[in-house]
Amino acid sequence: MDPSFTEVLHAAAPSALGTQVCRYARSSGLTVWLTGLSGAGKTTLAAAVCEDLRNKRRSVEVLDADVVRTHLWKELGFSKPDRDENVRRLAWVSQLLNRNGITTLVAAIAPYRDVRAEVRASCANFLEVYVNAPLDVCEQRDPKGHYRRARGGQLSQFTGVADPYEPPFQPDVECRTDKETLAESSAKIVSAIEAWFDSSREDAFTAGLLSLARALGA
Amino acid sequence: MDPSFTEVLHAAAPSALGTQVCRYARSSGLTVWLTGLSGAGKTTLAAAVCEDLRNKRRSVEVLDADVVRTHLWKELGFSKPDRDENVRRLAWVSQLLNRNGITTLVAAIAPYRDVRAEVRASCANFLEVYVNAPLDVCEQRDPKGHYRRARGGQLSQFTGVADPYEPPFQPDVECRTDKETLAESSAKIVSAIEAWFDSSREDAFTAGLLSLARALGA
Repeated sequence: MDPSFTEVLHAAAPSALGTQVCRYARSSGLTVWLTGLSGAGKTTLAAAVCEDLRNKRRSVEVLDADVVRTHLWKELGFSKPDRDENVRRLAWVSQLLNRNGITTLVAAIAPYRDVRAEVRASCANFLEVYVNAPLDVCEQRDPKGHYRRARGGQLSQFTGVADPYEPPFQPDVECRTDKETLAESSAKIVSAIEAWFDSSREDAFTAGLLSLARALGA
Repeated sequence: MDPSFTEVLHAAAPSALGTQVCRYARSSGLTVWLTGLSGAGKTTLAAAVCEDLRNKRRSVEVLDADVVRTHLWKELGFSKPDRDENVRRLAWVSQLLNRNGITTLVAAIAPYRDVRAEVRASCANFLEVYVNAPLDVCEQRDPKGHYRRARGGQLSQFTGVADPYEPPFQPDVECRTDKETLAESSAKIVSAIEAWFDSSREDAFTAGLLSLARALGA
């Protein structure tokens, strides 16, 4: 006879592994993190890359830090610990999508090198894209008026004005959005993503061959 | 020639629609919300349903409220406004997965009727499952020791002890986990989910026929 509900209940308390309560393997996506100053073009590039990848029938989602912060953790501020926590939480949401086969384009300043390294280490599948435009170019663009308010003292802790931005030493892709067109920058990112998927397919194929060889006693 | 980056930048600030920055239609999943007292069996049931659906090749994710809260918004407490906000945020994460074709099993007490109704209205695809066991049964099970601590005064605002639980009036599924086995309760939920997918497939088929008929001038 089936065990009663109470008998099986204790076994299934949420594990330390997070929401991973099922044992089945799942398809995996990739986290593509677009880091750079405000106004460098992260959101614009994420949208362009997203459109291109969807045309190629890839499952993709954009996680725009401003949007996610507003919906999920508006309590966090802009101190270093809060910015770091913002980055960690974005990475967690990103991995939730990745492990269900969705590739994510995370558009987030993520100004500190140490937490970017931490997040890269914690994500199995990760590409870092440095969306690079000089501060004066970003400030001239100022699409949201943030630089103007920061210079006027109405916005404290603004990256590039009163807060640091630590550029990546070795990004997987660098887009110079002051020199390249949107199409050029977007194409570089899409190529890197396609190359990543190609190499992960090759890895899976090699692993399959090795496992077959072992099964045949080779 | 391509427009410069600065020329296209302004158009793409994050929209009020959240992260929906691409215009392509996507596959849709379903939010299955398991509401009920602590110890009623929500997490246990979610794990069983998840395993069954994965065996049927459905894309499914479990969102366990305790786990998600710890990772994404541990600042929130257990006052009514904080509990309501917790439910809204879970629904937002759930819809992020749903719109990428992932069905979610949300295991969350969600004790208040009004915010459950709000979330049901905001989610396109929603099933409410009442995981129902009497308070004394839940308290006897007490898998996490919460009831003991709540009765001992070490845990305030605990649902069922010092905080209300408002049962659903018309849940889509009700599981009496004090009378049914895990397999019986799980099968009821899986049937409701399969029925929902069948009817949404029929709706899509009918819509396709109507649109064909219109195109033929019928």
